Amino acid sequence: MADYYLEDFEPGRTYTSPSLTVTDAEAVDFARRYDPQYFHLDPVAARDSVFGGLVLGGFQTAAISWALVQQTRMFDASALAGIGVDELRWHKPVRPGDTLRCDFTLIDARASRTQDDRGIVRFRYELKNQRDELVLSLVIIQLLRRRP
Amino acid sequence: MADYYLEDFEPGRTYTSPSLTVTDAEAVDFARRYDPQYFHLDPVAARDSVFGGLVLGGFQTAAISWALVQQTRMFDASALAGIGVDELRWHKPVRPGDTLRCDFTLIDARASRTQDDRGIVRFRYELKNQRDELVLSLVIIQLLRRRP
Repeated sequence: MADYYLEDFEPGRTYTSPSLTVTDAEAVDFARRYDPQYFHLDPVAARDSVFGGLVLGGFQTAAISWALVQQTRMFDASALAGIGVDELRWHKPVRPGDTLRCDFTLIDARASRTQDDRGIVRFRYELKNQRDELVLSLVIIQLLRRRP
Repeated sequence: MADYYLEDFEPGRTYTSPSLTVTDAEAVDFARRYDPQYFHLDPVAARDSVFGGLVLGGFQTAAISWALVQQTRMFDASALAGIGVDELRWHKPVRPGDTLRCDFTLIDARASRTQDDRGIVRFRYELKNQRDELVLSLVIIQLLRRRP
């Protein structure tokens, strides 16, 4: 695949990531390290939670959206650093067995004021499950390389 | 420790989490699954990145801030669900070997309009390293149980 740079993303255009089916093991492994609440760790106890069963931790869901977008390889040549995230919302629970994909849309891009080899972009991520339900959305702000 | 509920957090008061020293293994393990960029995975190649060495993935840093706050056990009784995150910013790189702690401050709390056993809170997280430098900040919005 040809290298992508800041100029190669079209504002308003939506790109789609590969998809991923989440396993029980991945959910529990993340939960043990970062989010050991019973509804992320214990399938039996989770039945009595507001979720009615095991669900992924919210920060795992966010990390998966990032991972899926990186799998497009569209940021391999250009990614310099992350600046931040705005408006992250967990719309629906994600359960082990769900198959997720991330649609991502360039909101805007602007040149850096101080370094002319880079610019700042904002993408909207929409993570969806196998029923096409929106489970997470966010706006990510990143520093990308401009085409040399 | 006594159970904490929504009413037990004081607006404007800052609480502090335990601290955690990040290992190379944790950084690389997270990177392999969620953020396989060379400056998160390969200590040698990372020297030529903008970071000058291995750094943690931004979503790992965010997950660590959450993990550290949960380690206070102050949300064990009350946490119902996450709603979202606003204004997340990665201020400085986090490197393996850094020792992190998270200061968190209740911004505001309001009762749910539809269910009187719960309410919506916003906390500001400030993740700091061993030099007391701010490495990440965010505002998290959560659904918490009110005192029964």
